[in-house]
Formats: sequence, structure tokens, C-alpha cells
Amino acid sequence: MSSSANGLINRPILASIHTDAFQHNLNRVRELAPQSKIWSVIKSRAYGHSFEAALKGLASTDGFALLSIHNAGRLREDGWQGRILLLEGLFHENEVALAEKLACDLVVHCEAQVQWLESYKPHKPMNVFLKMNTGMNRLGFKPAAYRTAFHRLHAAGYKMHHMTHFANADHVDRLPTVGSQLELFNETIEGLNAPTSLANSATILWHRNALGDWVRPGIMLYGASPTGIYADIKHAHLQAVMQLQSEIIDIQELKKGDHVGYGGRYEAPEDMRIGVVACGYADGYPRHAKDGTPVWVGDANHGNGMICPIVGRVSMDMLTIDLRQAPEAKIGSVVELWGDKVPVDEVAHMSDTIGYELLCALAQRVPVVVK
Amino acid sequence: MSSSANGLINRPILASIHTDAFQHNLNRVRELAPQSKIWSVIKSRAYGHSFEAALKGLASTDGFALLSIHNAGRLREDGWQGRILLLEGLFHENEVALAEKLACDLVVHCEAQVQWLESYKPHKPMNVFLKMNTGMNRLGFKPAAYRTAFHRLHAAGYKMHHMTHFANADHVDRLPTVGSQLELFNETIEGLNAPTSLANSATILWHRNALGDWVRPGIMLYGASPTGIYADIKHAHLQAVMQLQSEIIDIQELKKGDHVGYGGRYEAPEDMRIGVVACGYADGYPRHAKDGTPVWVGDANHGNGMICPIVGRVSMDMLTIDLRQAPEAKIGSVVELWGDKVPVDEVAHMSDTIGYELLCALAQRVPVVVK
Repeated sequence: MSSSANGLINRPILASIHTDAFQHNLNRVRELAPQSKIWSVIKSRAYGHSFEAALKGLASTDGFALLSIHNAGRLREDGWQGRILLLEGLFHENEVALAEKLACDLVVHCEAQVQWLESYKPHKPMNVFLKMNTGMNRLGFKPAAYRTAFHRLHAAGYKMHHMTHFANADHVDRLPTVGSQLELFNETIEGLNAPTSLANSATILWHRNALGDWVRPGIMLYGASPTGIYADIKHAHLQAVMQLQSEIIDIQELKKGDHVGYGGRYEAPEDMRIGVVACGYADGYPRHAKDGTPVWVGDANHGNGMICPIVGRVSMDMLTIDLRQAPEAKIGSVVELWGDKVPVDEVAHMSDTIGYELLCALAQRVPVVVK
Repeated sequence: MSSSANGLINRPILASIHTDAFQHNLNRVRELAPQSKIWSVIKSRAYGHSFEAALKGLASTDGFALLSIHNAGRLREDGWQGRILLLEGLFHENEVALAEKLACDLVVHCEAQVQWLESYKPHKPMNVFLKMNTGMNRLGFKPAAYRTAFHRLHAAGYKMHHMTHFANADHVDRLPTVGSQLELFNETIEGLNAPTSLANSATILWHRNALGDWVRPGIMLYGASPTGIYADIKHAHLQAVMQLQSEIIDIQELKKGDHVGYGGRYEAPEDMRIGVVACGYADGYPRHAKDGTPVWVGDANHGNGMICPIVGRVSMDMLTIDLRQAPEAKIGSVVELWGDKVPVDEVAHMSDTIGYELLCALAQRVPVVVK
């Protein structure tokens, strides 16, 4: 796994992107939201999976949603002819003509963006997703200002859609609730007939009264949990798309009482073997990972292996694991940091974060293979 | 700041790398370790700063230390003729000839690497830095095995150097101590005359009895603290090399009791304005950042500005800040996430990590400008 495309040699670390898992997860969205069209959210280089892999694995989507018009241009260059939604709309007025040329649908979330579109004369009607702030308090118009913005853009000839975003579709006990946001949304758009877009992954999984005409799955397409807790999606029939692998590059024989790594966080409770793995926080592995975070160690050829826990602090380029339960592990043994054997959410949970952050943080220095 | 090199437009986010600060920090290492040669550690794409910037700003170093022979090849292609140290040595036997061709110095930390070098017949003597595990328990030979490995490689014709790494040069109260590791190192190499390499940044700053012949500064070259605490380097006369900037892209007027962002973590204590900044965890900003993490907001032209604290959870592409103290802030106002106004260590500290992790995690999607 360590020969690079240019014939030089890399450290033994590799991310494999399984496009069949992408297709499987997209099919799951279709089953859960059969009446809706799908914006597959691929911002952040498809949550770290690469645009190339997303285009291949998610080719049957209705549209791709992302952030920058620069990347919309890349999708067009790569041959994507379906719809593209710019999730934060335009950042500057001088992007409008390019957005029309690239046939992008636009989110509009603030007054300046309304003015830019009013000043522009499109050659044919462009799609606008007008964003309402129903309680998330990030982007969008408050209900009192929303209808005015809608009428202005409608009058200027844009094809209008209603859009909002839920703050807590992955929680049951936080304010604002999905119910309260949905109610405010429905009240506000009353009489303004247009397609709607509401649902992120958590809504698709757990609030199927709030799907709307266009759903916007993100994290579930990548096989991870909106809550960051793997148990919450264990029975949702999603598959991990990214597998991050490395190898054991050194083994140390510790004596009882020896310390491991920076700060000496782990103290050996008995004589034991530890393995040094060529993956650290500069590869995107979380430095916050606690002792006990699962790592799979095995045999590349036969697929046999077992979970070995992290011991000691993750450093920039390496991490250390307890090999007491893996007497066959040796230098060169294959390690899965996350993938189908170790859910990325379990690593995230042991690091007080969510799978989203780990996937997006996959470092530039890690080679990616699209399968 | 948002026009990209290819003429398309990006989100308003940018990392500027100040090569004069690199040069300044390298000069500080020379002042602190005047008898030593310097390996400038530039693994992890120069801790996220790019090899290009490091080559330019650190051109007067004695050598560069990094991980993969692939990147050593890049440095040679870019014209670097000085020494290069592979900090983890070779990962596979088939790299030895290439390492010789690229004139790399090699760390040797395990038995397999000794065997590879014994089997190889170099055309001229290669430099080896033999790594001793004096208590870090990551890479290297225990003292009992060290002298044998030294003699074998010396007999095979390699130019030998002694090397170890301190686990706690940035702590005063953790085991193993610098003193205990240094004592074990000195005992073990007794009578084996060869140059030594011991000191990371924390050792250069705080343990100048343990510098050795080749120091290995990393984090201090980038103007951040080995401890992750800015106060510890405030008087060390280091300069921030990376500045991460963005802009306010939306403003929300909150009512008392309104919640902000996912999970509704922040609740407005009174009516207030918040700014939405185009930077999130998928840019490399830490999702762990707590309410109160400092962000500088100001005027790009005049440099006037002030610190505004983060309120609410950092999301993938955005974060939200309290604008109560910044009545002049508006959409388009410039924001510094870290740099010379906001030390990266202060952001790291509010996120329970260290500046190293944040610098290395700068995301691929953030454009980098070398100044």
C-alpha cells in the first residue's frame, strides 16, 4: 500500500474511498425520502473523500450542493451536467455572471445578495433557494423580513424555492426544536407557493414529517452518524465510505511502570508490548483521542485481526497501541484507524467530537485511492 | 483577499505565510544554540505552512528534517542542496538506493532498518542518526541494544551520530524527566565518539544543557509554544508565521433568549448582534473551541480592530462571534482567526489542544499565500 503514483515511496498511510458504499448510502436516502429530490452535500472536498470519488459514487443524485463557485466550476469541467447548489450563495457581486454561466442554483441568505440579484439581468430564469432563519441563527432572513425578500426576487424573475436549516434534528431535548422551526417555516411561507428544502441527514433519518421537496443529506452519505454516536445509525444500513489504514512501524517492549510518549500519559501496568503506528494528528487523526480508542490490527492478506486500544498521547506522526491481546502483531502489520471495522464515530466519540470533523480533517499528506 | 490565482472566486478565507517571520525565528534558534547546527523540522508540509514557504524563509538553515523520502525528492527538485534528515528513516528496504541518490541522512530506529543498511553497499559513506529510546517509548533502541546496533552500522561504513528525543522537555513534573533521559543517553554512548542530536524546541528554550551538536527545532520556528501556552513563549521573541483570515458574511440580530447554531449551545443574555464568519472546522479551525475563544475583527485598510469572542458551536463552514463590543463590524469586515493579533496557542488552549495541531490541520481548501 505504500508505493505512490509517481514511483516514489510514501509513509505507510492510505485512505481508500469506496464508491460502492457511496452508491449504497445514496440509495438509502432514496428509500427514506422517496418523494424528494436529493441535493448530495459535498462541501469540504466531499467531507474529505475527494470530489472525484463523490462524482463517481453519487452520480445518480439529482444535484450536488457545495460552497464555492470555484468548485462548481471544477464539477462542470469534470463533466457534471446536473444541478449544483451553492449553499452559502455568492460571496461577491462579481460572481453572479459566472454562477449563471455554470448554471448554479443559489442560496440567498442576506440583503446584499438580494440586491446583487436584483441588479443583475439573467438571460434565463435562475433558481434561488431563499434561506429563512427559523431559529438556527446562523444564515438567513428572519420571518419578518423573509416574505419581502421573496417577493422582490420573485418580481425580479428568479425561480423561487423556500429553504431553512434545523439546529437540533439530532437532539430531542434542545431548543429550538425541529417542530418549532417547522411551524415557523410553514407559517411564514403560507400562500407563497414554491418548492421547499429543509432536511439534513438527521431530519431524513428521524423527522420524516419535515422532508420537503429537496432533501440535503450530508454525513449519512459518508456512512457516519449525524449525532456522532455510532449506535444511532447502527441499524440504518449505512456503509463506511472512507477507510484509513496504516502499519505498525516499530514495537517497544515496556517494563512495568514505563511511560509512553509525550507527557508520559500512559504508564504500563505490567511488562507489555506496544506498537507504534505511522499515523498522527498531522494525518488528521484526533490528538484528543483518549486511552482506549479502538484501532484494528490485522493481517492484510487474510483479514484476520482484532481491536487494540490506543495507549499514550497521539503525536504528530505516530500513535501507540497496546498489543497485549495481539501476540501475532509485528512490524508491517496492517492497521485500520477507521472504516468498516472501526466506525469513525467511535474514534470521534473517544475524542469528544463527531465523525464529520475527522473525515473533513483527513490531511493533504495522506494519499487517497478511489475504489 | 478572495480572488484566487485562476481568476475564479473563493470563499473569503486565506492563510498568509510570512517568510520574514520564519527567518526571524530561525535567527532566534541560532542565538539560543550558537554552538549547534540546526535541523529545521518541516514535516507535515512545514506544519501546514507549505514547503515552498519553508524553503524560502528558512533557507539559511543547516538542514531540513522531514518524514517521507517522497518529500525529500521534492526538496531536491526545488533546488535544496543542503542536508536532509529522514526523521523516521526508511519505511521499506527498497528506498535505500533512492535515499543515497537524494543524499539523505537517515534516522535508524529499529532492527529491520539496521539489516537493510548492512545489506546495502553505499557508494560513499551515508550519515546515520541512530535513535536511542531513553524513555519516550516510541521509536528507538533501548540502551541495552543500542551499542550493538551502533557498532554494526559503524562496521558497515556508515557515518554515525547519536540521537534521542525528550518526552517532557515542556513539563517540569512528568516522568521521564529531561535529566533522567540525558543521563541515560550519556551513559550509553560513553566511548562511542560521534556527533549528537537531542534538542526539540522545548529543549532549546528551557534546557540548554541538553542541546547537542544538532538541534531539531520545530514548533518554535513557526512562532508557537511547545507547551501550547502562549504565555510560555511571550518573552522568547518569536513571531507568528501563519495568519489565518476570513470575513464576516452575515449578521444576525438576536433577541434575549435566542439560541445560536447547532445544539443551541449559546443563549443570548440580552438583545445582541452576532457575526457569522466564513471559517469552520473543515477549514482547520477547532470544533472544540469554547465560547469566549478570541477572534480579531477589524478594518483591513487601517488595521483597527478588536477581539470578539466566539459564541455557539463552530460548524463545518462557519463560526459565530459576539459583536456587542464591535458596533462598527459589518458584512465584509476582516477577521483574524490566528496570527500576530490572536496567538494560535490561545485558540488551541481554548480548544484543549496545542498550536501544533491547529497549524498542521490547516485544510487543503484554504488558499495559501506565501509572503
